[in-house]
Amino acid sequence: MTIPAEDTTFLEELVAAGLLVPTGVSGVMGRSGTFEHVLLGFDALVDRSTAADGAEVVRFPPIIPTAQLERSGYLASFPHLAGSVFSFSGSEAEAIDLATRVAGGADWSDLQTQTDVMVTPAACYPVYPWVAAAGALPPGGRLVDISGACFRHEPSTDPARMQSFRMHELVRLAARDEVLDWHAGWIDRGGELLASVGLATEIVPASDPFFGRVGRMLASSQREQNLKLERVFPIAAEKPTPIMSLNYHQDHFGLDFEIRTSDGEVAHSACLAFGLERVTLALFREHGLDTETWPDGVRGLLGL
Amino acid sequence: MTIPAEDTTFLEELVAAGLLVPTGVSGVMGRSGTFEHVLLGFDALVDRSTAADGAEVVRFPPIIPTAQLERSGYLASFPHLAGSVFSFSGSEAEAIDLATRVAGGADWSDLQTQTDVMVTPAACYPVYPWVAAAGALPPGGRLVDISGACFRHEPSTDPARMQSFRMHELVRLAARDEVLDWHAGWIDRGGELLASVGLATEIVPASDPFFGRVGRMLASSQREQNLKLERVFPIAAEKPTPIMSLNYHQDHFGLDFEIRTSDGEVAHSACLAFGLERVTLALFREHGLDTETWPDGVRGLLGL
Repeated sequence: MTIPAEDTTFLEELVAAGLLVPTGVSGVMGRSGTFEHVLLGFDALVDRSTAADGAEVVRFPPIIPTAQLERSGYLASFPHLAGSVFSFSGSEAEAIDLATRVAGGADWSDLQTQTDVMVTPAACYPVYPWVAAAGALPPGGRLVDISGACFRHEPSTDPARMQSFRMHELVRLAARDEVLDWHAGWIDRGGELLASVGLATEIVPASDPFFGRVGRMLASSQREQNLKLERVFPIAAEKPTPIMSLNYHQDHFGLDFEIRTSDGEVAHSACLAFGLERVTLALFREHGLDTETWPDGVRGLLGL
Repeated sequence: MTIPAEDTTFLEELVAAGLLVPTGVSGVMGRSGTFEHVLLGFDALVDRSTAADGAEVVRFPPIIPTAQLERSGYLASFPHLAGSVFSFSGSEAEAIDLATRVAGGADWSDLQTQTDVMVTPAACYPVYPWVAAAGALPPGGRLVDISGACFRHEPSTDPARMQSFRMHELVRLAARDEVLDWHAGWIDRGGELLASVGLATEIVPASDPFFGRVGRMLASSQREQNLKLERVFPIAAEKPTPIMSLNYHQDHFGLDFEIRTSDGEVAHSACLAFGLERVTLALFREHGLDTETWPDGVRGLLGL
């Protein structure tokens, strides 16, 4: 991907203002206390605005059992984005070899072996096996609130494309019609939530970044069936950036994880996700780099 | 390490109460909304009780550039705990091979290559290169507030030994005497903060889990020099669990990252860390699994 010049400029502005902290690896950035305050303020706004929905809250760490991702089909669809955790399990002599190579700047990858965890690629993945373990869904299905750090191996200088970022999601698991109703309701509701903090977004059909030629067919089919919608905002790139996505999975996760409705049917599912770093970047783009000058109403909603 | 039976019992109680969610991999656990609420309540209490110290706040993601850990000596001291992120960078044919192996339950580790990031092992590691990049320390040094997810490759059924957990740290970088003063001040102050939420702790000399025979000598030297102190609380294991640690690094990070004081001397550093999951587990151990029955004063301080 060619990075338009403007991206670099916005990234440089964010770094100069101390809001983002470069680490030497593209897409791996620290955040200032102010950036974090805005991000957590929006996170809390999502909590407040969905409190009456009665979602069950659960949180998972930024690592996930490899077996869970294997079962979900993630590695077949997105092998290039997935990160697996390797570690050292050698002898004392091999540890000395490792340290010597590190000191000498030599490759030490062959001294690492695969563990049974990966870095979580999307906040909702651990939800499906957790829901499945509880047995059939209750009548009316379940609604789960999840938030956490996600990893995608896609180094980029676009400040809106970080390798590690946080996602606040709601996941609906129920019968087909119940899931479709919930999904349809969030098309406007998500836009209103973002508009409440001054972000005017457009809703567009979208597709996931599936790998390879087969992946391009999958993406095309996903788009035709309107399974993925995104709310986009012009953060920095030539093309507006998705800051919210709404995904209807059909019975994909229901089949993979054997989740049944109370009637014994395969459960359908959908999820709504706010990209927290992206929403925060959009807020800085819209209202400026100094939060003191943001509109009072926005500051109030974000708890600034 | 042999896990005493009691650990398993406390873990089972936490799981039965829905506070922790097993994932199938030891030490990788989800947390309920209630667990998270308590944890974030203590995190915020640390913020409030240190607000007057004027620490600079910065947050880093749960991944860190490999080059930063290589420079810090972490891989020489703790190769067995470190996790490096590998990913797929092959062709379409290799992606099909990967998917086929995943579906068939075969090993696919040779289709992964090392990326330039690792999973962060302690919240403070990204702080040193960030401070170094700003040039010499100002007179009086710097104080940094950092919080984030940490990874240690040490699968265990002890609920207090998770592979992924969060740490809230303060890092002091200054001249030797200033660092030693700050370090000394936190010995009692940390105990008082924990006591304010009902946790009576003991302070004990400690050492880091260095690898191998040479590591045992390093650990012994660290203990003799009183470089690492821990506040321990009996969470679940036979031996009390450290829930706070206080580490004087001497000029270790100052030398590794070339950090200088305003006088041009090599900077010394120290850090104070609260293990947030461990403090939370200690609170459940001390006050019971039902937060509704906790003492009013504790509930108030934690915002419950």
